[in-house]
Amino acid sequence: MHSSQWIVAWVLLLQGCTVGQPQRANPARTDIRDCSTNPPYLPPTATETTARLAALRGAMRAHSVDAYIVPATDAHMSEYIAERDSRLGWVTGFTGSAGTGVVTLDKAALWTDSRYWTQAERQMDCNWELQRTTWIESIGQWILEAVPAGRNVSLDPFLFSIDTWSSYSQVLHGSGRTLLPIETNLVDQVWGDQRPPPASSKIYSLPTEFTGSSWQEKVAGIRQQMEQHIRSPTAVLLSGLEEIAWLFNLRGDDIPYNPVFYSYTLLTSTSISLFVDETRLTAEAQQSLQAGCPGPLCVELQEYSQVRAHVHDYAQGNVTIWLGTEYTTYGLYGVIPQEKLLEERYSPVMLAKAVKNAKEQELLRAAHVRDAVAVIQYLLWLEKMVPQGLVDEFSGARRVDALRWAQKHSRGPSFESISASGLNAALAHYSPSNMSSRKLSVDEVYLSDTGGQYLDGTTDITRTMHWGVPTPLQKETYTRVLMGNIDLSCLIFPPNTAGRTVESFARRALWEVGLNYGHGTGHGIGNFLSVHEWPVGFQTNNIPLTKGMFTSIEPGYYRDGEFGIRIEDIALVVEAQTEQHQTGEKPFLTFEVVSLVPYDRNLIDVSLLSQKQIQYLNAFYKTIRERVGPELQSQQLEEEYRWLQRNTEPFLQGSAGTTTATLCTLAITALLSTLLTELPA
Amino acid sequence: MHSSQWIVAWVLLLQGCTVGQPQRANPARTDIRDCSTNPPYLPPTATETTARLAALRGAMRAHSVDAYIVPATDAHMSEYIAERDSRLGWVTGFTGSAGTGVVTLDKAALWTDSRYWTQAERQMDCNWELQRTTWIESIGQWILEAVPAGRNVSLDPFLFSIDTWSSYSQVLHGSGRTLLPIETNLVDQVWGDQRPPPASSKIYSLPTEFTGSSWQEKVAGIRQQMEQHIRSPTAVLLSGLEEIAWLFNLRGDDIPYNPVFYSYTLLTSTSISLFVDETRLTAEAQQSLQAGCPGPLCVELQEYSQVRAHVHDYAQGNVTIWLGTEYTTYGLYGVIPQEKLLEERYSPVMLAKAVKNAKEQELLRAAHVRDAVAVIQYLLWLEKMVPQGLVDEFSGARRVDALRWAQKHSRGPSFESISASGLNAALAHYSPSNMSSRKLSVDEVYLSDTGGQYLDGTTDITRTMHWGVPTPLQKETYTRVLMGNIDLSCLIFPPNTAGRTVESFARRALWEVGLNYGHGTGHGIGNFLSVHEWPVGFQTNNIPLTKGMFTSIEPGYYRDGEFGIRIEDIALVVEAQTEQHQTGEKPFLTFEVVSLVPYDRNLIDVSLLSQKQIQYLNAFYKTIRERVGPELQSQQLEEEYRWLQRNTEPFLQGSAGTTTATLCTLAITALLSTLLTELPA
Repeated sequence: MHSSQWIVAWVLLLQGCTVGQPQRANPARTDIRDCSTNPPYLPPTATETTARLAALRGAMRAHSVDAYIVPATDAHMSEYIAERDSRLGWVTGFTGSAGTGVVTLDKAALWTDSRYWTQAERQMDCNWELQRTTWIESIGQWILEAVPAGRNVSLDPFLFSIDTWSSYSQVLHGSGRTLLPIETNLVDQVWGDQRPPPASSKIYSLPTEFTGSSWQEKVAGIRQQMEQHIRSPTAVLLSGLEEIAWLFNLRGDDIPYNPVFYSYTLLTSTSISLFVDETRLTAEAQQSLQAGCPGPLCVELQEYSQVRAHVHDYAQGNVTIWLGTEYTTYGLYGVIPQEKLLEERYSPVMLAKAVKNAKEQELLRAAHVRDAVAVIQYLLWLEKMVPQGLVDEFSGARRVDALRWAQKHSRGPSFESISASGLNAALAHYSPSNMSSRKLSVDEVYLSDTGGQYLDGTTDITRTMHWGVPTPLQKETYTRVLMGNIDLSCLIFPPNTAGRTVESFARRALWEVGLNYGHGTGHGIGNFLSVHEWPVGFQTNNIPLTKGMFTSIEPGYYRDGEFGIRIEDIALVVEAQTEQHQTGEKPFLTFEVVSLVPYDRNLIDVSLLSQKQIQYLNAFYKTIRERVGPELQSQQLEEEYRWLQRNTEPFLQGSAGTTTATLCTLAITALLSTLLTELPA
Repeated sequence: MHSSQWIVAWVLLLQGCTVGQPQRANPARTDIRDCSTNPPYLPPTATETTARLAALRGAMRAHSVDAYIVPATDAHMSEYIAERDSRLGWVTGFTGSAGTGVVTLDKAALWTDSRYWTQAERQMDCNWELQRTTWIESIGQWILEAVPAGRNVSLDPFLFSIDTWSSYSQVLHGSGRTLLPIETNLVDQVWGDQRPPPASSKIYSLPTEFTGSSWQEKVAGIRQQMEQHIRSPTAVLLSGLEEIAWLFNLRGDDIPYNPVFYSYTLLTSTSISLFVDETRLTAEAQQSLQAGCPGPLCVELQEYSQVRAHVHDYAQGNVTIWLGTEYTTYGLYGVIPQEKLLEERYSPVMLAKAVKNAKEQELLRAAHVRDAVAVIQYLLWLEKMVPQGLVDEFSGARRVDALRWAQKHSRGPSFESISASGLNAALAHYSPSNMSSRKLSVDEVYLSDTGGQYLDGTTDITRTMHWGVPTPLQKETYTRVLMGNIDLSCLIFPPNTAGRTVESFARRALWEVGLNYGHGTGHGIGNFLSVHEWPVGFQTNNIPLTKGMFTSIEPGYYRDGEFGIRIEDIALVVEAQTEQHQTGEKPFLTFEVVSLVPYDRNLIDVSLLSQKQIQYLNAFYKTIRERVGPELQSQQLEEEYRWLQRNTEPFLQGSAGTTTATLCTLAITALLSTLLTELPA
């Protein structure tokens, strides 16, 4: 899947590469809103924010604050957030997943990237300026102009990562304005009882059959790493919701599509403190956590809100606290004296989670077999229904969601299904609604990017289809996207290779003809956890690829106002068999694709594929038949079984003009050698 | 060329990718020296350092310093340094180009990377421990154990970059030891009159025919960037020797192989200060710099040693100083208040220099034509002399140097020629000496990595040869290295692509069979400037590739104790012609290889090459013939001309088993279509 935040990271990455000064936004663009008339013209989708802003400004005055910064994330730097944490959405009206708001006593502005400009203009009223950039320097510049020297600029330190805090601190440094953290969130204060309540649903233990190892084994592994570390940390502080869920084999449903729960953990060499709403744990979960009490394998349950005070007290001792700087907030970080910190980008728990053990690998593989069944059912259904004009984007999304729900161990979709027809497929983060949904047609490309949560694994797959006669450009670009997918999937690379250094293999076939795509090439994925699981993937801030990691591989191509293509599979990093091998070195690596759904033959121009690519496709299709065929039969899906056989027929090698067909090799070799003897060497 | 420091960067890059804790060195390795006996066993190559250390410790005591850190670079973070700046070499005896020494009152240790361990053991006496790592954390740990709390750890702030300073500062932070910068260099103080004197040779203007534009035009361009920058800097501070030489079209010879001179520059919106030994400028150079005096295009000459005081005074005003953090020292940086700094990785002058204008491109192309003549003369000479047993590594290096000197506009080699036969070619930075030089033989692989300085451009080329029967492994690895060179050279990529994201294309053919090389893939190069010109290249800290940049492309393969292969060309980044093109976007880019010497046919296994690779080679050879042929003829080098014709014969497409020959395409297509109609679709 191809998410908002993930694209933001990509956009920022590109911007980060720009040499020289920050780019200013194009001033030529005009706003949908017209705030110069009286009354101003606003689209009907705009949210009235005058009263909310007045209340917020009242709270700001009470705290002597002249500017208040409101981010789009939560206290765990989560990619997806609960409604309750959508402070930026409530105060601005803008519901996009990426942006920053700043409110002063007489102005208010939202910064967001180009994907969201139109949406922001549609959703915000004239209280809000739209700033078409995301540079913190630009936010800082605006604040310096809006806030006089000697005044306070404030924020909630629990909503900003260490790095973001530092960036604001740096742009205001020496300017005479103070960056003042206030622990009471001012938006929450004025949001009041309109704010959605905290989650109250149960937090439960994952059954042993779905876990890679017991939580006690995981804790022992982390403690061993603490002992072996050159700095001998005495504790690990965990802020990431996924890492805590993974460590304790617990799950919840506090955030849509993500089976996590709000919590922090302080794991020391002799104790374990889990900061969570104790009343939400099932009896079984409580028992699992406290079976070892008292002792080093006893999990002490503490109030979620006590984490700061507890860490503060712990940090008074002769301790060293290990934490991941990428997702720990300044609020927690700030209570630990600098010399007692062991800062790495990711905690050892986050890194341990990223490498799946043999059982976790088997679980994820198994989930993908059942997921393939659901997707194949969907593709067959589309093939029959679309020509009759009976499917629109929304009903399609509902259909595939329902098919997944019907599979064993299903816990529903792993993100909001992307179901996009025609020009909608060119939009980076399109999801249909019941109100606006395009009808699927044999004359248009259709893109379906969906995934499932199963007790044994999380899935994510994109297939793009055409049921009629695709244009030559659609066929060429689909084929080149597929070539990129294949070239990366069958790449052999040394151990410890960073994903960012190899993701271009997924782009080369497009680059060759002057085309590209504007998002990342892949992301990690969990065992019944997040569909975007950090820190695995192909981006700059991902960690090197290691045997046992799962990542998506998802090149695409998007033509504004026309069509969009993406082909996404999940792949496991495995050892490669290579002919040569440097003595004493670790084996090289490659990918094993675990998404088991064939591609659309109608969109493949086989003549563009190399012999190697065709060989790869045929071997992959053989695997699909072997793994998904029996499951279709055991579910008595005979029509789907026949569909699979049809759609995994081997491609003929050498039907491409530039390669020779295997079946023809003997004849041609003979012909060639005859011809060659006639030619000069 | 494939240099020491550049490999260090690579080694550090790889280490930087490692997840988790710093690796400790392998303790199993034994030292060549035996310091446990009395007297200790030392190789005859060791330097006696007892007196030097005693003198240094005296100076340390006088400054209340308990540990003194000595780096391997100079005050401009130069890659190559003058003898006068080889403080680490003098105090340790170790002459490798990368390392850090720390001296306490009773201990001394050198940190260096694995390439230099043997050399360090051979050159150092028992006063020095060898620490087999380069992590600053490890240096810090050692210092913490050796120096009691409450004492001072000291260094010369003019020999440490801002980042390195910060790293030391961080590892000592909170430990009770003070990191104390002392501006008097203590090694220089005790080195005394044994230290080589400062350079005294002339600094001269480059004739107009060899410059891309006048220095006044370059200054105007930089001032325009200052005005347009969002932070409106009032000055640019230049510390890089290359950027100053480029800006003023001046050259010197203060550092071997590098036509630069010691200097700093403060360029403000209204004035220009060049800090340099004024007496060394030629009359012509003085006149060029001062023709616009008084006025904004007048270069005021100031003492080199006055830069710190001058910048300090300037920074008192209402100013903003723009500088490149990658190569400005903490000594200079520290005198500027934080809020008056505009920090970017590279100054705008460094970035402007990186993109060659049309005239600079033509100059570099022309230098490469004459350079190809010298290299072709050398290859022909080797072909005749090696079978007679008449060449060794050292005489070979002298020969190619002499051939370059004979070319028009030559100013000698651009680095110490690498000339390595057999197992010596597997050493990363081998240069022969008259004392130890292996004889070239028809039974061994020979690697020649050499370059020239010409008034119009700097060159750098590596060719690997075999005059007898190479082993299958040598032939396969040579061919795969060539495939990597070709795959990267003919890559088409979007504008603003970072080199690090595409350098894997130069590795894939090796990776495919489980092999790799342990150095970077390429570096920028100058117009009669450095052979390694920052910040262009394929490493993590290089800037994105832009039209007009020159970079080397140099994959290799090294088999310890057996042989080594490297194939290096210089390539210009140019616009690509692509079939498709996204409307409104900038053209895609590709490379034009400007090194014009054919590869060794004896080492190429054509059957491994794809049709596209063969096409590329043939087109490249056609270009070589067209550009170098006439030059060989005009120099009346008829034998070399015939050699070139022989060695640039087109390769037959389809002599490879897996592809079809162009000449055969019609026949085969006919055959195929007949066969295909018989087969199931």
